[in-house]
Amino acid sequence: MAAEAQLYFEDYVPGSVRDLGPAVVGEAEIVEFARRYDPQPIHTDPQWARSGPFGGLIASGWHTAAIMMRLLVDQYLPAASSLGSPGIDELRWLRPVRPGDELWVRVTVIDARPSRSKPDRGLLTSRVEVRVAGGEAVMTMTALNMIRRRPDGAG
Amino acid sequence: MAAEAQLYFEDYVPGSVRDLGPAVVGEAEIVEFARRYDPQPIHTDPQWARSGPFGGLIASGWHTAAIMMRLLVDQYLPAASSLGSPGIDELRWLRPVRPGDELWVRVTVIDARPSRSKPDRGLLTSRVEVRVAGGEAVMTMTALNMIRRRPDGAG
Repeated sequence: MAAEAQLYFEDYVPGSVRDLGPAVVGEAEIVEFARRYDPQPIHTDPQWARSGPFGGLIASGWHTAAIMMRLLVDQYLPAASSLGSPGIDELRWLRPVRPGDELWVRVTVIDARPSRSKPDRGLLTSRVEVRVAGGEAVMTMTALNMIRRRPDGAG
Repeated sequence: MAAEAQLYFEDYVPGSVRDLGPAVVGEAEIVEFARRYDPQPIHTDPQWARSGPFGGLIASGWHTAAIMMRLLVDQYLPAASSLGSPGIDELRWLRPVRPGDELWVRVTVIDARPSRSKPDRGLLTSRVEVRVAGGEAVMTMTALNMIRRRPDGAG
């Protein structure tokens, strides 16, 4: 993948791999997110969580997904050419994310297919793995993204 | 589905339908979520977004998912018997969510299958549709949830 400022659909080559990160998630942020969007005590109450099924507070899976999205926006998706996402396939939460964990994302371009109905864009399919530094995958998914094609004459 | 305080796996009957809501999402919350987790101008900059591809500010798809999760926690999942989620299938963002939209969730129990390896729980499969009041679906997905089975002798 090229590193110039303005990326287009053509810059996402199937087989290419990028590592994005790090993002560190703290207890206060885990609790704050969960109080608003996923108020289960395993995410909001450190004391309760110590005797809970995971032996401690863990992040909401939707919080892990949101942190992953921040890394994709900052380090993978093209700032000016991203046209939104039709969806996500096979999202799996494999292991808990705990306060202080340092998250990294490995993203692999699986497919890049020009749109038949809209010639200005293409559909990018990416395999996404979220890992804790030095550990195994905590979350995986397949992401779909619409990306603008390089206009004639653009660098 | 029964309405008693303590729900278990056995209370989720395939074919049953629940409507959850409402949740109203405002511009300030859309911008705040996106600045932290999905800082694309279509989600963070109302002025830029007016001339953007959707003709106005729209919520991050992950924000829509988080709001949906809040409704599932408050009105669908069993507070004391929810054992987490292995994942999500076929999440689709179909239409934009805009400031002031009133969101409702329709959730249908698709399958409820006792675990073979862990006899204290079962896997609940639910079809989830997020709609704007009076409008069409904005997001759909299939959710997987591990739910504790009713202990012998429990009401």
